[in-house]
Amino acid sequence: MKTSEIRALFSVVSRPEVVSLAGGMPAVTALPLDAVGSMIGELVSGMGAQTLQYGSGQGDPRLRERICDVMALEGITDASPSEVVVTVGSQQGLDLVTRVFCDPGDVVLAEGPSYVGALGVFQAAEARVRHVPMDDDGLIPEALEQTLLECRADGDRVKFLYTVPNYHNPAGVTLSEPRRQAVMEIAERYDLLVIEDNPYGLLGFDREPMRALRARDDRRVIYLGSFSKTFSPGLRVGWVLAPLAVREKLVLATEAQVLCPPSLTQYAVARYLDTQPWREQVKHFVELYRERRDATLESLEALMPAGTTWTRPDGGFYVWLKLPHGLDAKQMQPRAVNAHVAYVPGIGFYADGSGSEFMRLSYCYPEPDQIREGVRRLARVIEAELDLHSTFDAVDTGTFRAVPGPHGGAAPGAGTIVGPANSDRYEDRA
Amino acid sequence: MKTSEIRALFSVVSRPEVVSLAGGMPAVTALPLDAVGSMIGELVSGMGAQTLQYGSGQGDPRLRERICDVMALEGITDASPSEVVVTVGSQQGLDLVTRVFCDPGDVVLAEGPSYVGALGVFQAAEARVRHVPMDDDGLIPEALEQTLLECRADGDRVKFLYTVPNYHNPAGVTLSEPRRQAVMEIAERYDLLVIEDNPYGLLGFDREPMRALRARDDRRVIYLGSFSKTFSPGLRVGWVLAPLAVREKLVLATEAQVLCPPSLTQYAVARYLDTQPWREQVKHFVELYRERRDATLESLEALMPAGTTWTRPDGGFYVWLKLPHGLDAKQMQPRAVNAHVAYVPGIGFYADGSGSEFMRLSYCYPEPDQIREGVRRLARVIEAELDLHSTFDAVDTGTFRAVPGPHGGAAPGAGTIVGPANSDRYEDRA
Repeated sequence: MKTSEIRALFSVVSRPEVVSLAGGMPAVTALPLDAVGSMIGELVSGMGAQTLQYGSGQGDPRLRERICDVMALEGITDASPSEVVVTVGSQQGLDLVTRVFCDPGDVVLAEGPSYVGALGVFQAAEARVRHVPMDDDGLIPEALEQTLLECRADGDRVKFLYTVPNYHNPAGVTLSEPRRQAVMEIAERYDLLVIEDNPYGLLGFDREPMRALRARDDRRVIYLGSFSKTFSPGLRVGWVLAPLAVREKLVLATEAQVLCPPSLTQYAVARYLDTQPWREQVKHFVELYRERRDATLESLEALMPAGTTWTRPDGGFYVWLKLPHGLDAKQMQPRAVNAHVAYVPGIGFYADGSGSEFMRLSYCYPEPDQIREGVRRLARVIEAELDLHSTFDAVDTGTFRAVPGPHGGAAPGAGTIVGPANSDRYEDRA
Repeated sequence: MKTSEIRALFSVVSRPEVVSLAGGMPAVTALPLDAVGSMIGELVSGMGAQTLQYGSGQGDPRLRERICDVMALEGITDASPSEVVVTVGSQQGLDLVTRVFCDPGDVVLAEGPSYVGALGVFQAAEARVRHVPMDDDGLIPEALEQTLLECRADGDRVKFLYTVPNYHNPAGVTLSEPRRQAVMEIAERYDLLVIEDNPYGLLGFDREPMRALRARDDRRVIYLGSFSKTFSPGLRVGWVLAPLAVREKLVLATEAQVLCPPSLTQYAVARYLDTQPWREQVKHFVELYRERRDATLESLEALMPAGTTWTRPDGGFYVWLKLPHGLDAKQMQPRAVNAHVAYVPGIGFYADGSGSEFMRLSYCYPEPDQIREGVRRLARVIEAELDLHSTFDAVDTGTFRAVPGPHGGAAPGAGTIVGPANSDRYEDRA
């Protein structure tokens, strides 16, 4: 299973001498730990009868109200706390939704590449994943419609589209405004349910949050949210926003799974939103991640050998890098770890075994200087690999418009993330 | 679904004028809330980089060591932290085990009655439940063997026996020492996996903890533990102890479900076990529950009309009460709530629709005076029902040896919990 590979990798790269660009761990030490600590301590000493006791399966009503306020920042203004189910991280939310909708053999559509944790959920439910290509503007609507037609022809039971529209994990790209419109039109036309997984939506570097898909359709979209990136992943507090008929099924499913989410962590998040300057804290996180994103992109531009290409995230945690022609990120991994730099091989983000030439680089956790050193080590490893494969004369001209300039340069408009197979798709980004 | 009925009931009985003997909420306010509060506050301010961050899917290694120390109190001295998986309450542990072992249509054996939350898990997994009768000494081994033979004859795929051996929820009875031996011999003979769910094992009123089934067989028993009754249910920290081959499957399953359990709550439990006098606290809980158990049994003896019978728990939270012949606990429920007393109808604890004449009374949460008042109200409701049904001349002589004396008296050796259908089974208790 993919998650086990990543777990094995993390155990290796936790050694201090290794610069890990593998993990997606938020920079929690940037939180005001003393203030949060005394806040949580007071919740226990002052409200132990509630915070240490069982709660409702759907989650604390007060927290569900605050969650609606948070979603309003992304244009979801019609959500009712009664439509919200608090979950043990949005991972549990996706698991519950999948359990409710999918039988073994059902088909789930997901971006290619897609979040590895989601692929684990779909595999556990014995659902089949069909990937839909992306490019620098995110999911390609024409490719979605094409896939739907193929599924229809194959007689597949398509249960939903799973998508991470903002600062995609692992691709780092964001679904553009016109494409959001196009995707929802296709969903309407093909009666397609959309699962919008949005942990990074408030972590944009250069703009206000984009309008959520759920803000455009309250019947056809189930929204998954999380406080793991805006506050703390160690509390494991996420949520699902779903129409009432689905919500009731989700509550029954979560009661069977965990009875109720932890009370203490829910009260901690609600109190944090009520009493701490959480929006300023998110701005602080964003500045910190922007600095690390810049360090990553600058180092990549300066150091990567020609033929290496990558995405340019304007939010979130991840850069998606494509190796020069002929290189395999997973085969290269042991040599990278020996060179004291770690990443996640791209193959883990596909259900169909593709993606061997890609890797995910996470800039969320290491300091900028570590990032620069890590990219320097990675560049050397790639150069050594190119040397080994003596493929200097077979350099791929790259598949991203995002990276101009002499190194790693893809001409604007070139190709898509999944590469040549879809290189005819770039026109739609005009 | 049964859980939804109970949820609906709880929303009604949360009104202050109602004495609720329905909920199974521990008396968390008996904890040293100030000490626990500052302990948790310091965990966040001093160790936020760990307690607010993602952790391992299997759970914090330090906590898994402490969990092995706790299990040693029940005779499990060979458990390794590597065999422990921390879960979001033992409910998630049971869900994971069921997902790993059960396909739709598989058969699970469970006591009759059985924990309602377990029935919810089995239903969600589309497993079929076959109940095995109990009496005052717990699960009846002869009945277990008989059921296994019937399953074999019917061609059922029996995946495991689910049992709560100590202070059973809802029956309040405990599996006797000779029966533990007998059950494990049957498990060996029939190659039966046993899921031992033991949240109440340290809450015995009159004796040292009994030796766990897992202490007798480390290959054939998967053990589920919980801190919900010995510390706090609001933290949702439980665990599974399973052989390594199963453990790896459980870790993959929990990673797909929740990625990892909350870090903060795990650190809170580990720190609590390390620094607080937790065994003295358990003794304190036990004294408190014993007082409430006594108030319950004394009031039942004094007030219940003839023909009403009940179990006499020597630990845990619950009394299992059987109404006089002809009465139905669920039909009676609205009148009980109108009389400002609440209980859980027995039908919720059976997968086969039986149990209408039973109810579960929880004494863990209300004060002794509330309990006495609640039992007084309940006795009046039952008397009114008897009046209504004018069944004074058709009084069942009861099915429990546990309750001697003029009222609710069953002669020693009479019957079993599931009543007449198994009244030929009492010989095995000699």
